Amino acid sequence: MQYGFSKTVNLSFEAAIERVTEELKKEGFGVLTTIDVRATLKKKLDVDFPKYVILGACNPPFAHKTLQADPQIGLLLPCNLIVYEKDGKSFVSAFDPMAMMKVVDNDLIKPIAEEMKRRLERVVAAV
Amino acid sequence: MQYGFSKTVNLSFEAAIERVTEELKKEGFGVLTTIDVRATLKKKLDVDFPKYVILGACNPPFAHKTLQADPQIGLLLPCNLIVYEKDGKSFVSAFDPMAMMKVVDNDLIKPIAEEMKRRLERVVAAV
Repeated sequence: MQYGFSKTVNLSFEAAIERVTEELKKEGFGVLTTIDVRATLKKKLDVDFPKYVILGACNPPFAHKTLQADPQIGLLLPCNLIVYEKDGKSFVSAFDPMAMMKVVDNDLIKPIAEEMKRRLERVVAAV
Repeated sequence: MQYGFSKTVNLSFEAAIERVTEELKKEGFGVLTTIDVRATLKKKLDVDFPKYVILGACNPPFAHKTLQADPQIGLLLPCNLIVYEKDGKSFVSAFDPMAMMKVVDNDLIKPIAEEMKRRLERVVAAV
């Protein structure tokens, strides 16, 4: 995958969300936003879509540093993780912060993205 | 700017958020998430930061199509706009969906990103 790391987990969809949230907390990330994709698509388009959530995770010290280095970086925050169900299995993926560096050319942000990547890899591995 | 289009607007911060939301609606986008960056950094780090919000915008038919073309694309949704205040002025920026194509290699998604770009350029121009 070009822009994230992904894992099939042996948990229900709901338990996977709970575990991701707990593991994020251990690495200093809070979940600021939750988008229930299935509910949104049902409400707006009346289509049936599998269980799918987008979690917007934020590590406040990292967010503060990146915003000071580039005031526009809010366009790329927070860092997303997704949890979804397919064929009765649950999948967890985290956005790879280093993929962000393909569009952001800023030497102050690169080491933060590297550290975030290490932490998010640990989060996905631990779920 | 490498990953968005930006504009200084002759409106208060609060009025700018309202106008962006209205203009997004005209182009088929709803605001799914709002992150008050200033309040979040004050609460979590007790630092003072200028007025700054991140709006997560979603056009449901486009979101549905991109999710069908690439189930992982939720890592890059919704499409962000930011409104912030600096030196007494208000700034509005929208993420350039074509910047997403630097990390996503998918021919089904490219025309959707192009159409989203046209719409978001109109939104920023109209504020």
